[in-house]
Amino acid sequence: MGPLASAQFMLRLTLLTPAARDQDHLPAILWSDPRVPDRTAARLAGGEDPLPWLNRGIAGLEAAGCGVIAIPCNTAHGWYEGMRAATRLPILHIVDAAAEELARQGVAGGRIGVMGTAGTLAMRLYQERLEGRGYDCIVPEEAEMQALVSPGIALVKANRVAEAYAPLAEAATRLRARGAAAVVLGCTEIPLGILAGPHAEIGVPLIDTIDALALSALCWAGKL
Amino acid sequence: MGPLASAQFMLRLTLLTPAARDQDHLPAILWSDPRVPDRTAARLAGGEDPLPWLNRGIAGLEAAGCGVIAIPCNTAHGWYEGMRAATRLPILHIVDAAAEELARQGVAGGRIGVMGTAGTLAMRLYQERLEGRGYDCIVPEEAEMQALVSPGIALVKANRVAEAYAPLAEAATRLRARGAAAVVLGCTEIPLGILAGPHAEIGVPLIDTIDALALSALCWAGKL
Repeated sequence: MGPLASAQFMLRLTLLTPAARDQDHLPAILWSDPRVPDRTAARLAGGEDPLPWLNRGIAGLEAAGCGVIAIPCNTAHGWYEGMRAATRLPILHIVDAAAEELARQGVAGGRIGVMGTAGTLAMRLYQERLEGRGYDCIVPEEAEMQALVSPGIALVKANRVAEAYAPLAEAATRLRARGAAAVVLGCTEIPLGILAGPHAEIGVPLIDTIDALALSALCWAGKL
Repeated sequence: MGPLASAQFMLRLTLLTPAARDQDHLPAILWSDPRVPDRTAARLAGGEDPLPWLNRGIAGLEAAGCGVIAIPCNTAHGWYEGMRAATRLPILHIVDAAAEELARQGVAGGRIGVMGTAGTLAMRLYQERLEGRGYDCIVPEEAEMQALVSPGIALVKANRVAEAYAPLAEAATRLRARGAAAVVLGCTEIPLGILAGPHAEIGVPLIDTIDALALSALCWAGKL
């Protein structure tokens, strides 16, 4: 969906693989279809339903012989059950991958910040799945979404990655100020923007959902 | 084939696209199969023929509805005619893409250096295709291939990108010392290693065959 996030997923999947030569790496097929209707607009503004487009990708990956599906777009997980019903393949869930990464980074529970698209936050994808694991999720305020997070995501989608750092880092810093012990970058455009600047200054563990999903795929494949 | 080069191709294809939102980007499918038998070993040491593997990828991309094929592996172009015979889709040729990039960078003819795998150089993929366009190709000496270029490529395939800079930059510098007005990085692992270090110090235009092929694909799609 976000094609830069999709390409970055492939890059990170490769770099996170213990490998000494080509043949040690995982075979993988990337179905990058940026024509999928905007997921947030579909959920919040009555835009075109993305599910038929998502299921076209699933069918293409199944036909190509894949054994598991990873979807490096958080908002698309709002249609997770619809996709799952359309395939016999397992689909990794990006929120579960983020939860595993929180645990890996030593954040076992308590208050965490979640950044994401307006669609992801409105669907409560993180809140519902993480609250059962002992996390209390806080999210940016409506004004912060409009001034910082949504514009930051749009800049990445327009290839203006360096410019996306400032608004996204500001939103993460405000979540930290409200007590977040970690911030989940719950839209795969967000790590691209945050990592383009001095992100260590934010001063709180950042959960990169691209890396988290790649690690989850490598675990599935027995590479880690 | 080289999975890091394949992922980087997707990243560069995206970043080189004039786009303001997801839907402005090209739909693309990456068939990344690092199990394809080593192309250089096949050509020089009687290793397993990669053509059936390559044609499996071509068939998969055709079945998925692609309109054109780009192969971000130079050595695989030694089997270009065999792949072309197996599909009705056009296949962009990476050496033609490199030639277009030489022209774009103002190198209109004369002596150029070509770095690549031992297989690519032995098959004379660049020499034969570029000499007709007025270029005189020089390549690293056998000892430089063994000490610098082949180890540099292997380091990238093993994800040791930063370590690949020194040997690859040294090989490029030596081609410049022998009169090359530009150096074609004619193996898609090489730009990954060279760009990981202070490559401007090499002091000669470097032709990144990943970017060249991405630009060629974008031209085909009418995006440039």
